[in-house]
Amino acid sequence: MESLPYALDLAGTFVFALSGAMAGVKRKLDLFGVLVLSFVAANTGGVIRDILIGATPPGAISDWRYLGVSLAAGIITFYFSSAIIQRWNPVLLFDAAGLALFAVSGAHKALVYGLNPVMATLLGMLTGIGGGMARDVLLAEIPTVLRSDLSAVAALVGAAVVVIANMLQLPSGVAALFGAVLCFGLRVLAIRNGWQLPVARADRRSKGPG
Amino acid sequence: MESLPYALDLAGTFVFALSGAMAGVKRKLDLFGVLVLSFVAANTGGVIRDILIGATPPGAISDWRYLGVSLAAGIITFYFSSAIIQRWNPVLLFDAAGLALFAVSGAHKALVYGLNPVMATLLGMLTGIGGGMARDVLLAEIPTVLRSDLSAVAALVGAAVVVIANMLQLPSGVAALFGAVLCFGLRVLAIRNGWQLPVARADRRSKGPG
Amino acid sequence: MESLPYALDLAGTFVFALSGAMAGVKRKLDLFGVLVLSFVAANTGGVIRDILIGATPPGAISDWRYLGVSLAAGIITFYFSSAIIQRWNPVLLFDAAGLALFAVSGAHKALVYGLNPVMATLLGMLTGIGGGMARDVLLAEIPTVLRSDLSAVAALVGAAVVVIANMLQLPSGVAALFGAVLCFGLRVLAIRNGWQLPVARADRRSKGPG
Repeated sequence: MESLPYALDLAGTFVFALSGAMAGVKRKLDLFGVLVLSFVAANTGGVIRDILIGATPPGAISDWRYLGVSLAAGIITFYFSSAIIQRWNPVLLFDAAGLALFAVSGAHKALVYGLNPVMATLLGMLTGIGGGMARDVLLAEIPTVLRSDLSAVAALVGAAVVVIANMLQLPSGVAALFGAVLCFGLRVLAIRNGWQLPVARADRRSKGPG
Repeated sequence: MESLPYALDLAGTFVFALSGAMAGVKRKLDLFGVLVLSFVAANTGGVIRDILIGATPPGAISDWRYLGVSLAAGIITFYFSSAIIQRWNPVLLFDAAGLALFAVSGAHKALVYGLNPVMATLLGMLTGIGGGMARDVLLAEIPTVLRSDLSAVAALVGAAVVVIANMLQLPSGVAALFGAVLCFGLRVLAIRNGWQLPVARADRRSKGPG
Repeated sequence: MESLPYALDLAGTFVFALSGAMAGVKRKLDLFGVLVLSFVAANTGGVIRDILIGATPPGAISDWRYLGVSLAAGIITFYFSSAIIQRWNPVLLFDAAGLALFAVSGAHKALVYGLNPVMATLLGMLTGIGGGMARDVLLAEIPTVLRSDLSAVAALVGAAVVVIANMLQLPSGVAALFGAVLCFGLRVLAIRNGWQLPVARADRRSKGPG
């Protein structure tokens, strides 16, 4: 296990767990509920990726450190939520860093397991955004990322850099760094400038399924 | 790969993706959200089936054509949603065809992986209805199929025909055709005639969990 | 297959299926929806555990008895829901028994598949509470267990007893019995006395994600 990527992975887990715990605190879940949301928000993306590519048991299940980091973030949030809210902007920066790292490491793992380039890119994106989607599903809400959030595109770009570099046989370390920086920058710029994807102009009089 | 079943499978993917994208457009999701719902509605049934029977990576992950067809349907829906709404009745016919095909092919694949007849039938049904259920969960709604929709029964019948024919060692091609036609016919008749399953008469004064 | 644990497992399946079916009847789902909720509430915990540890196809898919017991509970609930509501207190006792059994058997199965002690404990808990969570997600509600329910803690304790006994090489039968009794007792006492976990004091003026 190389120690730098691993440390970054745990850092990403920590900030995503913070975001899950904050969402739970705001919905007035009890302590257990907050801890579940911490773990789910931080680890579901990777778990779904690992199940889809057949890498069971997933890392978040077999390596207890992911659990430990997630629970620590959840407990800190539970007892110090107002302090965290005051510092939310720096947390958003960490969150963008976590997204960048997960997108890059997710795409890399999918390539290692032999997936084709298109799907490796998508699984990288899924690793980055899956946790937030699962968090919102548990809270009975439409996932933020489906409505008004550019993080999916940022994750897609970061993952695509890794996959394209792999096809061109460029050095993977440089590609991972470049992909992560690009994803991080896009996400931060999107937050700063309020960038959003377009919404279809649905006909008001529409009738149909769903 | 036989080309006729494969083409039909992609056609089923396309119409299910249309239904997912339409639901996303109506909830005012952004472009990414609409594309996610396209993919989820078209592929989740098959993905869950493949995970349950241990066939990883699932076809929808390893074969990029499913993704391509899903995204094409999503993009078309996003930009031409009012035209699609005007043609919704023919789309419902295609949807019934997709259900029929997925139920039959899902049951067939489960049999190939050695599942017992009862479970192969249910996995056929799940292949047909799973995508719509996942679409509704992401939209934070109770799945339509659980409330007021006869498509589950139609899918069950179609899958059962394939499984029973397999037990009687009848030719599988004929069985698949017959099962699909039966499922399609049932679904279309249910839509035309407003057929529904019964709802329990719950006691208004009831108190209990949930 | 030892017959006593297996019989207890089916009994746990039955009472959890009752709880799922009751929730479906109260939301006025149709017969199919009620049966789906029966199966989901009774089997999802074990299915997710089996997928995470790589034990596919899951027991609930490969052994038709779990399906049969789930459907029987669903049909009984559908047609006799008012009688069941009158007897709800005894059903809650059975429910606590099901939780105890699933937590213990889930932890045991995770140990057999070589998971580390912490994760085996958590998978035991997940086996106990996963079905109820999936039931609530399908009903588009925040899972009860995340908000106001001590069953997660009870399941955790029961699973931990099995795992600790395994680490100390104590006899597994005695440990399973002791863990199940402890889980059952905790759950029943929590219901009787209205025990709850703490909720964080969220700042009303808070602004943040989610």
